[in-house]
This record gives sequence, C-alpha cells and structure tokens, in this order.
Amino acid sequence: MWNAFFSSSLFIDGFVFASRVEFDLYFRKNPFGGEFTVFAGLEECIKFIANFKFTEHDILFLQSVMPMCEDAFFDYLRKIDCSDVEVYSIPEGSVVFPKVPLMRVEGPVAVVQLLETPFVNLINYASLVTTNAARHRHVAGKSKVLLEFGLRRAQGPDGAISASKYCFMGGFDATSNVLAGNLFGIPLRGTHSHAYVSSYMSLDDIPDKALMSKDGSRVCKDFVSLVKEWLQRIHLADSLCGVFGDTNQSELAAFVSYALAFPSNFLALVDTYDVMRSGIPNFCAVALALHDLGYKASGIRLDSGDLAYLSIETRKVFRTIEKEFNVPNFEKMIITASNDLNEETIDALNKQGHEVDAFGIGTYLVTCYSQAALGCVFKLVEINSRPRIKLSEDVTKVGLLSSC
Amino acid sequence: MWNAFFSSSLFIDGFVFASRVEFDLYFRKNPFGGEFTVFAGLEECIKFIANFKFTEHDILFLQSVMPMCEDAFFDYLRKIDCSDVEVYSIPEGSVVFPKVPLMRVEGPVAVVQLLETPFVNLINYASLVTTNAARHRHVAGKSKVLLEFGLRRAQGPDGAISASKYCFMGGFDATSNVLAGNLFGIPLRGTHSHAYVSSYMSLDDIPDKALMSKDGSRVCKDFVSLVKEWLQRIHLADSLCGVFGDTNQSELAAFVSYALAFPSNFLALVDTYDVMRSGIPNFCAVALALHDLGYKASGIRLDSGDLAYLSIETRKVFRTIEKEFNVPNFEKMIITASNDLNEETIDALNKQGHEVDAFGIGTYLVTCYSQAALGCVFKLVEINSRPRIKLSEDVTKVGLLSSC
Repeated sequence: MWNAFFSSSLFIDGFVFASRVEFDLYFRKNPFGGEFTVFAGLEECIKFIANFKFTEHDILFLQSVMPMCEDAFFDYLRKIDCSDVEVYSIPEGSVVFPKVPLMRVEGPVAVVQLLETPFVNLINYASLVTTNAARHRHVAGKSKVLLEFGLRRAQGPDGAISASKYCFMGGFDATSNVLAGNLFGIPLRGTHSHAYVSSYMSLDDIPDKALMSKDGSRVCKDFVSLVKEWLQRIHLADSLCGVFGDTNQSELAAFVSYALAFPSNFLALVDTYDVMRSGIPNFCAVALALHDLGYKASGIRLDSGDLAYLSIETRKVFRTIEKEFNVPNFEKMIITASNDLNEETIDALNKQGHEVDAFGIGTYLVTCYSQAALGCVFKLVEINSRPRIKLSEDVTKVGLLSSC
Repeated sequence: MWNAFFSSSLFIDGFVFASRVEFDLYFRKNPFGGEFTVFAGLEECIKFIANFKFTEHDILFLQSVMPMCEDAFFDYLRKIDCSDVEVYSIPEGSVVFPKVPLMRVEGPVAVVQLLETPFVNLINYASLVTTNAARHRHVAGKSKVLLEFGLRRAQGPDGAISASKYCFMGGFDATSNVLAGNLFGIPLRGTHSHAYVSSYMSLDDIPDKALMSKDGSRVCKDFVSLVKEWLQRIHLADSLCGVFGDTNQSELAAFVSYALAFPSNFLALVDTYDVMRSGIPNFCAVALALHDLGYKASGIRLDSGDLAYLSIETRKVFRTIEKEFNVPNFEKMIITASNDLNEETIDALNKQGHEVDAFGIGTYLVTCYSQAALGCVFKLVEINSRPRIKLSEDVTKVGLLSSC
C-alpha cells in the first residue's frame, strides 16, 4: 500500500508522501456490556513513535518480500521517523466513552498510516484490561485487597506483563508477577503453591527446628513440638470440641517449614487436602506457635470449594481461637480467596455474604474472558485540511466525526 | 516459597534443594466446547530452559523485595540453571486430550518449581490459539485460503506474534503481520486499508499515468484513460445494463494508483463506499485495463455487509464480464472476506451458500474470544520416587495421574 502512496505522490511536489493527514483513534462500544472504558496504553504509543525507525535488517526483509518495489522506496523508508508527527490525546487513565476520539494523530500520510496497527494494538488491550480491573475493583469494593494472579493464564509472556501493569492502573493493589514488580514498581504479593504442600511427607522432613523470637531475646529450639502442643490444645479446646479430627501431617510439615523460613510473612494455602478438617487447624497451630514467639501470622488462602461458606466458617474458628486462647486480633487474620474469580462470582459472594479480605484474580481478569478485545479503530478524518469519511455497508460502522 | 524449600533442605544431605521431583503438565477440558486440542508451545519451553539463569540485576531486585532471606539463598540462585532438568514431551503439533500429561518435567524440586509458571504460560495460549486455528480450518474446509489478520486486536504486541506463529501451525496459510513473516518465514498477505481509499480525492491525484505492459513490449501512456474507457464499456454492456450507476471517483483514483504501483498484485478493498454500485465496477474497470496490458488482477476484499450475498453477486458480475468481454478466468478472481469472522459466521456462510475463496480472520481467532484461556496445570506427581497427589474441595480438580 505504501508503495502506491509513494508512487503517486513522488512527483506531485517534490516531497514523497507529502500529504498531511489527521487520523482519529476511538472505539465504538464500551466493553463488558458496561457504560464506561478506562483509556490506557498512551505511554507505550509515545515510546513507539519516539523510537520508530526502520533498521537495515527490516529493509532487507522488506526488499525480499517486495521485490517489485523500486530502490527509491526503500531509501525513503530508511529515512523516515516520527519527528513530523503530532499526537493529541486524552490523558491516560481517563474514563472515556464510545466514538469520542481518544487520540488524534497528525503527520505525513505514509508515516501516520504506519502507526495505525501498532497504536490500535497498544491501546486496545491496555484499555480493555484496565477497564476490566476497574470493574473488578468496583464490584469488590474499596475495602478489599485485589491481587492480580494472571501470569500463567495470560496470552503470552508479554500479555502477562501488560496485564500486571494495567490491572494496577485499573485499581489492583499488587501482582504475583515478579518481573512486573521489577519493571514497574508494582507491589508483589503471592503465596506458596499446592506442590509445595504436597512435596512434604512428614514433620521428619524438617531438619532445623529452631526459631528465634521476633525480638531476638530467646530461641525456641523445637518449634515443631511447640506447634504440636498447640494442635493438641486446639483439639482439646471446649469451644472447638469436635470440630477438628486428625490433620494432614504432610501439610503441617509444609506450614511449619514455611513459617520457619518466613515467620513474619506466614500465609498458608489451606485447601491442598481438606480446608476445615486439616488446613485451618494446621494453620492455627502454626500461627499460635508463632504468636508465642512474638510473630503475627498473615493469614490463609482458599483456592477451591464454596468460598463464601469456607470463609465464614474460617472466620468463626479464628474468632473462637481469639477468645479461647486470648490472642488479640486473631479474628482479623487475612482470608484470601482465589479460584477462577471474576466480576460475577465476586458479586455472587457479596450477595451470599462472605468473610474474604483479599481476592486473587487471574484468568478472567487478564484475558478479559467475557470480552477479549475492545475493537479500537483508527480512521482518516482529514487530508490536506479537507475532511474525509469512510462509509460502510454497516451503518453502525460509519463514524460521526469531523476534524473541526 | 523457595526460601522455605531452601531452609528445610539445606542441611539434609549437603545439597540444597536436593529432592528430585516429577511434575506433569496437562489440561482438564478441551477448549471451545470441542473434542480435541492441538499441543503447542514446546519449542518456547525448551528455549526457556536452555537460557534459564538469574542475572545479577534479577538477584539485586529479589534481595530488595526479600530482605529477610539469607545471603546463601541468593548465592544458590546465582548458580542454578536447568542442566539437571529432564523434559519428556508429546511432539508439538499433536492432537491431545484432557488429563493426559503433555509434558513431564523431572529435576531438583526448587528448579522445576520455578518452571511451573513460565511453562504453563507458554503452553496455555500457544495450544489454545493453535486449536482455534485448526477449528477454523476445519469449518472453512481445505480448499479455502485462511489469512490471519489479528495483529491490531491481539492481547499486546507479543500476543500478536505468538498468534501469527501458532495460527500458521494450526492450518492458516498466511499472516498480515510482517514481523511474524520475518521471524518465522510465514507467508505474508494483506490488502490496503480503507484510509488508503478515502485519502484520494479524484483521478487528478495521480501524477504519473504511464504503465508498461507486463512483457515490457509497450507503454500505456495514459492508464487512467484506459480505465475510464473500460468503466464506460461496463456501463454500456447489455448483460450488465442497469446494474451500475456512477462510481465513486475517489475510490477509482485509489484503485488506479494501487494498480500502477502493483500491477501484478492488484487486490482491492471494495467496501469503502458501496460494494455493488461503486467498489465492484471500479475494480472491474481497473482489472480489465490491467488485462489489456497482460496483467492479471488478484481479486477483491469485502470487509462489511452481507458477505454471502455480496460474494455471490460479485461472482455473478465476474462471470458476466468474462463472457461479455471474453476475458478468460475473470470469473475466478479471488473474493476475500473479512469483518469479525469466526467459526460460527463461517459455518453460517457455508449454510447460506457463498462465493468466498479466502477468509481474513482477526479478533475472534487471535484472542480466542469464545474461550480466552486453556487452563493448563503443572502438578507434582512424584518426589524422591514417591508418588504425590493434590486433593481438592473440587472433585473435578483431583488428578488421576500416577507417575508409573
């Protein structure tokens, strides 16, 4: 296409591709059946034009696939950059609406035309996932912690990095993507995996059982025995009588080992075997032992089952333990929930009632599962100060824009 | 989590993270409500482990966010690579089924655990989009040309590159993504944009009207006049009488200009103004003029409207022109269709009857719109030759795998 522009404009006035054009970038419909969109991706567009240049490698490849084009065309490509391009834009992060130009791009026709695909690519997913994050924040409420857990389900590694960046922009608190934390300074949050739990066999797997108290004043030489004592006390507690039976020892070993490594950041994934019969009592025993040494456990994560019911039952246990053993604020232990959460499931949890403090959201958030593309367009609205419009067989596709 | 592995294994037998584990990578359900999945992404996993290494920059960042970890832990990270990891895999491109291990990864627990997220990320989208492409090929039929047109709607620039690669693997013929063509040798195909058409005002915009015949034997000094003559002949033809009125001159100028630049590759987007009243007669006039000079036009692209009806009507016009002006094979001109196509719309076109030869598919293909994630998992099945399994509150999530 360029070459056609090139051939036809080469001799007009001595400047190749001399026509000056104005393009508008906009979308036609808010995503997710909603009433707003959050505009994002501008910074990446600006970086793109700041660095836009054909390398000799690019030119060689283009020559190989377009042998019919004259040398002067490739010489032209070697020279172009975006120094003569002007971009007018709504600020990144703004709430925007359909058919309103988000960006207006002015410059030489052939250069601006080259920006259509990269700009639409960079704005489309960025705005979509930022909007999705903002919608999740809206349904979860301001008081909840929202964690982006999408790396493994995102559309490629770069898709995951973009997702982390734009979910943070859309109102999430942290990401589990360490590289995104490094690149953008986004707070990092995560827990251990199920495999970590199931990789332990028994408490014998723990070689070093000693743990120094938080204030450094004493060393508990056998933290494992302390945890076992607490497990016994929980079993025998009147207020918890009959709630718990024997707990899974492999899970207990994993929790103890984790607490020994991170006594100030103990957050346990409690659903590897059985949340209420094993995960919760094992967690509580380790948390109480840590408390003896001056540490405060962080909380638990639920990753399967009826999250409303399990979170409510868990909170009851925490409350009972706070009272039974007189441990201040044990009731307020953080309950994190994950497992294919999305706007609808969080809304359903809200309606049922739940005790979740933090949501870890992955697949539905980062892939924008309910609508995987925004559908931005980049339309010519003016050429050499004369207005242009594309008509269409679809009336809905006809823009109502003018360049006035 | 690693640090917990590290602390507990450091003193066991003199090797840190010494336990040898086996993980299986699989998915639980075929995507798109279908009965098969095409496995893809293996090459990228192999490249990942071949190059896996923590840089000093990585270590510095990890130290900054994990100040509680001991120096020996970071020294360990500096040393690890995947030289002791073994990967067994089904060949890339195989048709695979739920719950069957696609890859089995063996090695030191801490190293293999680090591979969970990148492997799941790399396999998930690759297999999903390859499967989606294969499904589109199945519904379109073997005889149709399938073009991947997804760059602007993919989830980020890297998502687009992956899409082009894996759609080709899944049975597509070409891509419009020039970088993917360069990186992977995928054939490139595309047409001009609507903006190209609407950027022209009139035939006066064409400065150089000369075109040499294909065999180089003569020069047509005024190709524009030749096209005008053909447009007149089409208007006056008995067999086409009354079908066409005045055509859009801006569109005609764009087509002529494109044909002058690419006389052997003239493929026109005919829906900028009105397909049957303007796009098709303008295209035919240019194609017939090119034919006079020994060239063969490629065809047209429809990007809006009722694609079944428009393709059938267009084919009728091509057939009539072949007979009226005795131009062999004019009837066989390629009709390409695009505009939010997917499996369902192609199936509907098949049922209605259509004359489309090539489909350009973007959004629904590359974002896997109807199911945007596959949901691969990476589960521990053996540690130090002892089998392990993760149970779950969700019975469907419990694997039936053994390492036997």
